[in-house]
Amino acid sequence: MIETKQHETGQRASMRELARRAHDASVSMLSATPEQKTRAIRAMARGLLDAQAQILDANARDVGAAWAAGMGSAKVDRLTLTVARLRDMADGLETVADLPDPIGRVFAESVVPSGMRVSRVRVPLGVILFIYEARPNATADAAAICLKASNAIILRGGSEAKESNSAIVSVLSDALVSEGLPAAAIQTVPRYDHEAVNELLGMNDSIDLVIPRGGESLIRTVAKHSTIPVLKHFKGNCHVYVDAAADLRMAEEIVVNSKVQRPGVCNAAEKLLVHERVAAGLLPQLAQRMDTVELRGDDASRALVARIGPATEDDWSDEYLDLIMGVKVVGGVGEAIEHINRYGSAHTDTIVTADEETAMRFLHEVDSASVLWNASTRMADGGQVGLGAEIGISTDKLHARGPMGVEELTSYKWLLIGDGQLRA
Amino acid sequence: MIETKQHETGQRASMRELARRAHDASVSMLSATPEQKTRAIRAMARGLLDAQAQILDANARDVGAAWAAGMGSAKVDRLTLTVARLRDMADGLETVADLPDPIGRVFAESVVPSGMRVSRVRVPLGVILFIYEARPNATADAAAICLKASNAIILRGGSEAKESNSAIVSVLSDALVSEGLPAAAIQTVPRYDHEAVNELLGMNDSIDLVIPRGGESLIRTVAKHSTIPVLKHFKGNCHVYVDAAADLRMAEEIVVNSKVQRPGVCNAAEKLLVHERVAAGLLPQLAQRMDTVELRGDDASRALVARIGPATEDDWSDEYLDLIMGVKVVGGVGEAIEHINRYGSAHTDTIVTADEETAMRFLHEVDSASVLWNASTRMADGGQVGLGAEIGISTDKLHARGPMGVEELTSYKWLLIGDGQLRA
Repeated sequence: MIETKQHETGQRASMRELARRAHDASVSMLSATPEQKTRAIRAMARGLLDAQAQILDANARDVGAAWAAGMGSAKVDRLTLTVARLRDMADGLETVADLPDPIGRVFAESVVPSGMRVSRVRVPLGVILFIYEARPNATADAAAICLKASNAIILRGGSEAKESNSAIVSVLSDALVSEGLPAAAIQTVPRYDHEAVNELLGMNDSIDLVIPRGGESLIRTVAKHSTIPVLKHFKGNCHVYVDAAADLRMAEEIVVNSKVQRPGVCNAAEKLLVHERVAAGLLPQLAQRMDTVELRGDDASRALVARIGPATEDDWSDEYLDLIMGVKVVGGVGEAIEHINRYGSAHTDTIVTADEETAMRFLHEVDSASVLWNASTRMADGGQVGLGAEIGISTDKLHARGPMGVEELTSYKWLLIGDGQLRA
Repeated sequence: MIETKQHETGQRASMRELARRAHDASVSMLSATPEQKTRAIRAMARGLLDAQAQILDANARDVGAAWAAGMGSAKVDRLTLTVARLRDMADGLETVADLPDPIGRVFAESVVPSGMRVSRVRVPLGVILFIYEARPNATADAAAICLKASNAIILRGGSEAKESNSAIVSVLSDALVSEGLPAAAIQTVPRYDHEAVNELLGMNDSIDLVIPRGGESLIRTVAKHSTIPVLKHFKGNCHVYVDAAADLRMAEEIVVNSKVQRPGVCNAAEKLLVHERVAAGLLPQLAQRMDTVELRGDDASRALVARIGPATEDDWSDEYLDLIMGVKVVGGVGEAIEHINRYGSAHTDTIVTADEETAMRFLHEVDSASVLWNASTRMADGGQVGLGAEIGISTDKLHARGPMGVEELTSYKWLLIGDGQLRA
């Protein structure tokens, strides 16, 4: 009994210590120069390639353990690193290195009636706790993006990737030190029990933001337990609406790309809404082309395509993350908007139409983080919208909404410069 | 037993109903035009003046009850409305009416390499729950600022001001209706028990943001219980640092104004740090001039001014909100910065100096929401920094930091306009 207790206290102290080191590192990062950060991120990219053998070795141990534990092949694929994937990771870091430095950027500058010069300037958030799933390539991305904004990051990846993540973070930390930056600006949580995370979620004195990425229940648990602000990355029940005025060839390409280009990610489309006037012209051909996709539809769509199975009420709000798509025939853009705002997840939705007025109504009235016109839902991504890189796609309305890049990991402060101004 | 249960269920249902009405109103507000909102806010201002007699009557009942309950005179003063204060409230509303409309404003527009036109556009947050203290003039301000950003607001003021707030909100709602806007966009919580607030804090499906303003324990309780994002308005332990290179006449004016112009508010100064080279030239005269202010100092300051009492360690982190000031002699700007970052509340701090390099170091290194140079801490206020009006001063780093105006009550969405873009 006593032993257990001491053991627990020891564990708690070590999480406290981890957070304290991150906090101290974040204070040191306040004096990091843009050049230092850029050089450190380039050194990380080189380091990943130089340490290729060790990282692939570590990853092989994770993959072996995953097979042994009976992990499904899609998940094992996400976990697996290859020379090509390591090169992609390094290229991703070079992209982040090239991004403009957000820190110290002055915005909203003005001289107010009292004569004070008022400006706001970007500052780091501080310490970010990133809780994520098994993909080890997210590790380097997230660390580099946080570092670019002069933050310290605590990485809590899935236990399945622990050997890989530990090998990667060791390379990243070495790169920091080689450029005179604190090693503790990038740390992993060495424990994989829930207790460790819960302890960290209570440390609002040393951690400034939590970003959980993963299943809905993980995110809800984090949001419930955290005393630290949380930026949530909930599910994407994304829609493609094909309007009566759509170019049907373009519509077909957009539906296929939105659904099958990478079905397991949050901005893949899950639902297809088709205007009744073009349903007969689109659905049969589309069903034939997407022969690997299970279709679940309403009566009207099933009357047009025999292989569409029946959709239940739950289907309209489900996120499949798989080769399944719900199909519904609607009377017009109004019904489509209403359906999306009711059943959707306010993540990413697109309209295909040649009619500008209809498109503008859709863009304005669909209450989602990203609303597209004549483009695949997969285009709503940090890299594609010009952020250079992303740490995730926020489904929150506070602070950051939709794709989150480097600037979304900053705060700001007000600078007021006067010559003796007093309040009357 | 059964009766109690039914009663409780009834209460719960009514909070749920209140939140649902607010949510529905926020959806209607999406189609409010800028002109409609401006006209409604002007109608509110007129309404306050037209209903002057009823509002002052209601306020007199609150004030009478407050005296009877033994409330202190400073608090009763904050609660009391007069013709002049009602006119100030109306003027405040006219100011908000004149502010530019933030909704629909496009920012960060670009054409990305794929040819998509990418922009972000301001949208309302939705429903805001504002929990605040006794001052009834905050009611009209907060409602108008929320409305300007097309949000619905639920107001939960102090029970001491319930008659006043109810009379004011009745006028505001009538003004909404007169311009075709939903009355439920501005509602008060009709119950003053903690349970009512706790129920609302669980309704993250219909409320988007909570802004608590008041004592520290209220804010901590709200942050702990809320499943809705909270923008905290914690205490202001604000500092004036008088540097060796300060114009001592300016310094004296800034210290006095920061401390005594309105000692009960969060951006009033609580601490004075003085460079050792100017302490003897500043402190004796200042102590004489601020004869209504109790001074608590370190040994060095007490050696210069006999009437300075001893400061304890707690004094350095306390927020007095009263005519009390802590005084400390420091060796230079570095020690001042270290002291402020250690004991301060990251709210508002100012330096008085004629030396630009010293000022720049202070502005850069003090980690506070507002950092000033040669201006009173009282100038860090929404109205003074050009926001037109403020709903409070955020001590959070996420979403909004420092003075919060209309734009800080908005979110944004991404609009992606393409011509068939697909993800490769």
